[in-house]
Order: sequence, then structure tokens, then C-alpha cells
Amino acid sequence: MPFVNIHITRDGVSKEQKQQLISGVTRLLEEVLQKSPALTHIIITETDTDNWGVGGEQVTEMRKRK
Amino acid sequence: MPFVNIHITRDGVSKEQKQQLISGVTRLLEEVLQKSPALTHIIITETDTDNWGVGGEQVTEMRKRK
Amino acid sequence: MPFVNIHITRDGVSKEQKQQLISGVTRLLEEVLQKSPALTHIIITETDTDNWGVGGEQVTEMRKRK
Amino acid sequence: MPFVNIHITRDGVSKEQKQQLISGVTRLLEEVLQKSPALTHIIITETDTDNWGVGGEQVTEMRKRK
Amino acid sequence: MPFVNIHITRDGVSKEQKQQLISGVTRLLEEVLQKSPALTHIIITETDTDNWGVGGEQVTEMRKRK
Amino acid sequence: MPFVNIHITRDGVSKEQKQQLISGVTRLLEEVLQKSPALTHIIITETDTDNWGVGGEQVTEMRKRK
Repeated sequence: MPFVNIHITRDGVSKEQKQQLISGVTRLLEEVLQKSPALTHIIITETDTDNWGVGGEQVTEMRKRK
Repeated sequence: MPFVNIHITRDGVSKEQKQQLISGVTRLLEEVLQKSPALTHIIITETDTDNWGVGGEQVTEMRKRK
Repeated sequence: MPFVNIHITRDGVSKEQKQQLISGVTRLLEEVLQKSPALTHIIITETDTDNWGVGGEQVTEMRKRK
Repeated sequence: MPFVNIHITRDGVSKEQKQQLISGVTRLLEEVLQKSPALTHIIITETDTDNWGVGGEQVTEMRKRK
Repeated sequence: MPFVNIHITRDGVSKEQKQQLISGVTRLLEEVLQKSPALTHIIITETDTDNWGVGGEQVTEMRKRK
Repeated sequence: MPFVNIHITRDGVSKEQKQQLISGVTRLLEEVLQKSPALTHIIITETDTDNWGVGGEQVTEMRKRK
């Protein structure tokens, strides 16, 4: 019965990469906890880098310095 | 003081349907738990079908097979 | 495919009341959006009143004044 | 290690205001709980006013009456 | 910068199983999206079966019938 | 209308510290976005260190090494 919410920055993640995340997490929950894939729901939430902060700074700015 | 987050797939849900969800859940919380509607907040989060997985598969793909 | 997270204060909500919330929200999503109940997951999260604030104040303190 | 999710209505919040929220919450967690800013992640989620309800009503409608 | 929230039912999941979930999801995000493990935060939220509903029914009751 | 969810590790945070977080975040949202405190809800979610992972490792283990 797991529900998994994956928050990532909006960076042009492809449909195929999203599918890999969904199948990978579903398989992991089946292997580790014997959870039925039919009851495993996964949501990928993409957030703009202006709206994500780490270390008190927007990710947009953090990346400019690198 | 309830806060309710309703996650649904992005499928052209109308403004009127959203209003029905908001008033229905608010009324339910008042009836079952005597919660004041003024303190009940509801957020509807719409997620693209590429970003939602069930059974290890994107909802986009799952629907194509039906 | 809805997923609903209901946040309420921890106030001795009974098992029967939780069941009423679960069946009520599931039915509402079926009526308004034709969502299959088998794909509707609902989680009730109970939070201590020390951990919930409204108006800049803990609910624990807010209730004492009433 | 804090993770903070700030849900607000989508109202044209500027990049600078988002930065102020991110730096302000990060500083608060450092002052009150000695949390390292490097481990503090903050996400700002903006929600359309049609998708947010208070008092059983969409914020869009609530604001029209004012 | 991912943040992942894994919601599961409270079923006596061991510390080792939690570690397997944490390392597995972190590795997956590194492989698929090249996310730095140092910036990947994972929270496992365990919910009582009375507080989780599927198909309009508490998981507690659903399991009794099986 | 903000709703803020602050996730922290369960580390014996006092009632007073929780009050400081609640009043501090509420004030910040009023200063930066002119949000009415009466409509600002804040939830503090405390998570066991076995259930929080960073860098692919449980916080429980990470702290032992320090």
C-alpha cells in the first residue's frame, strides 16, 4: 500500500527517466517489503529551481556559482 | 483545523468539480468530527499522467492499453 | 488514482470516525470525478496540538483561552 | 536535517520574495534548533486559487466577495 | 536535490529494511538522474492501518477478510 | 492562506521551541507576503532518525560516526 512522493527540481527530466524512477521504486518496495506493485502509487513532483532552497539560497543561484 | 491535500491526475477537471470536492470534504469533516469549516483548508494537486505511476507503470501507458 | 492526505489534530478520533472519513471521501471522488474506489488511497495523519499552529499560536494554547 | 514545504496561492510571488522566505525559514531553524543550513531544504509550492479551498469555498470566489 | 517521502503502513518494518529503502532509492536517483547522494533526503512515514484506506475501507478491515 | 509543513528529526524539541518555529514562520509570511496570520497553518512533523536518510544512510548511523 505504499505511496511515494518524489520531489525533484524541474530540469527537463524525460518521460523515460520518469518511467525508470517509477519502476525502480516499485521493484524496491516489492523486494524489501513484499509490497504488491498493484497497490504502490508513485508521484513525481517537479519544482522550479526558484522555488527550492538549500543552505538558505535558491537552487537557481546556487547553480550559477558553480 | 484540518488540512486536506487531494492528489489527482491532470485530466481537465473543471472549476465546478473542484468546488464540489472542496465543499464535499469540508462538509464531511464537519459532520464526522465537528470541525469548523472556517479552519478547514483543502488543496487539490493535479499531476501529469507521466508523473504518476501505479503497478510500476506510468498512468499514461496504463491508459493506452485499455 | 487519487491519493488524499487528511491532516487533523490528535484528539481521540475513533476507528469508526476514521472509517467514515475514508468511505466519505472515496465516495465523493467517485461521484464527482468517476474515480474507481479501488485506486483511491486515503491517509489520515494525526498531529499533536503542540505541533500545529494557527494565527502564530499552538493549538494547545489557543484552546486554553476558549 | 529539516525539510520545509511552504504551500501558498499562486499570486505572482517574485523571485526576491521567494528568496526571502527561503533565507528566513533557514535562519529560523538555525536559531531555534541549531540546524545546519546546508542540510535545510525548502520547497515553495504555488497552488491556483481554484484549487485551494477555505470554509468550503474556492479562494477565487472568496476573494471576489471582498 | 531530491526529497522523497515514502508512506507505508506500520507493520514492524525493521531498521535494516528501512536502511535498504534509503540506500536503494538514493542509488536509483543517482543512476537515473545523476543526483548527488549528499543532497538526497528520504523520509519514511509509517501509518497505522486504521488510518489508511483503500477502496473505501480501512486496511485493518481489508486484511481481516483475506 | 499559507500551509507550512516543517519536517524535523525527533530529537526532544521542546514545546517552547515549537512555539518559536510557529510564531517565526507565521511572522515571516506576514512580512514577506502580507499573509494574514489567521489563515496561516503550520504543522511540525517529527520523524525518527531511523526513518530519515541523507547520503544513502540513516541519520541514526550518520550521527554515530561524528
